[in-house]
Amino acid sequence: MQGLRIIWVGKTKLGYSRVGVSSFVKRITPLSNLECIEVRGAVHSNREPEAAIRVESDAILKRLQPREPVILLHENGKQHSSRELAQLLGNLREQGSGGVTFVLGGAYGVDERVEASATETISLSRMTFPHQLVRVMLLEQIYRALTLHGGHAYHHD
Amino acid sequence: MQGLRIIWVGKTKLGYSRVGVSSFVKRITPLSNLECIEVRGAVHSNREPEAAIRVESDAILKRLQPREPVILLHENGKQHSSRELAQLLGNLREQGSGGVTFVLGGAYGVDERVEASATETISLSRMTFPHQLVRVMLLEQIYRALTLHGGHAYHHD
Repeated sequence: MQGLRIIWVGKTKLGYSRVGVSSFVKRITPLSNLECIEVRGAVHSNREPEAAIRVESDAILKRLQPREPVILLHENGKQHSSRELAQLLGNLREQGSGGVTFVLGGAYGVDERVEASATETISLSRMTFPHQLVRVMLLEQIYRALTLHGGHAYHHD
Repeated sequence: MQGLRIIWVGKTKLGYSRVGVSSFVKRITPLSNLECIEVRGAVHSNREPEAAIRVESDAILKRLQPREPVILLHENGKQHSSRELAQLLGNLREQGSGGVTFVLGGAYGVDERVEASATETISLSRMTFPHQLVRVMLLEQIYRALTLHGGHAYHHD
């Protein structure tokens, strides 16, 4: 069984995010291989984000594995319940060789090449959350999904 | 202008949650009065949550202010975008004397008396997140809403 990969843009720099990421990574790793891949954020001004989006998308594309399903987090993605996400993740792992890559774009998102490479596009909320907090939210949902698969008592409806 | 109140159940005990709560409280307080009110969580087993829900709901009801609008976070609540939540919060503060109370129930939610006391019932996501993380998510959205009102550059669509 291959593991899970998360690609995100830029350092996990805020205190709560570092503590949260490390806390959920610790809980996930006994249940699944997990690799958090940090690609470098491009410097960009609010006025010209396109160049940065392209550079960051290049870096993301280089880290995708051939034939491995990709779940892209995107503001226009489909909203799932936690059980639906667990189901989706389980299905994708069965279809492939077990590996799945999650992609979190930078502050201005990703370009159409990354969008086209996504097997599924999901959104965690209608609300906009900072990327540092989204990392913690996504890891928590992955942990929750794995406990649902394993029949642990973490999630309750 | 009265301030914002958040009532939640039980201590903010996890590391990432403590750091996150404290980080966003620090960012909010220059923009608005804010009081985080912690009511005691009742001890309960998974099999008999009703008694605990009632005790926790009693404690929440005691802390509500007469005639102050209440925004209850609830899994069946309405999902808003960040701009919509900012609008809702602005409207409620205008209608009332400026004060608004947010209520986050415990692990098993609140009873029908708390539900009936809510002016608005909202949900942050279709997904289930732990209450410790929801505190950080809610505070971040409140901070975002206040920066939107103030014309700060924090939020971008």
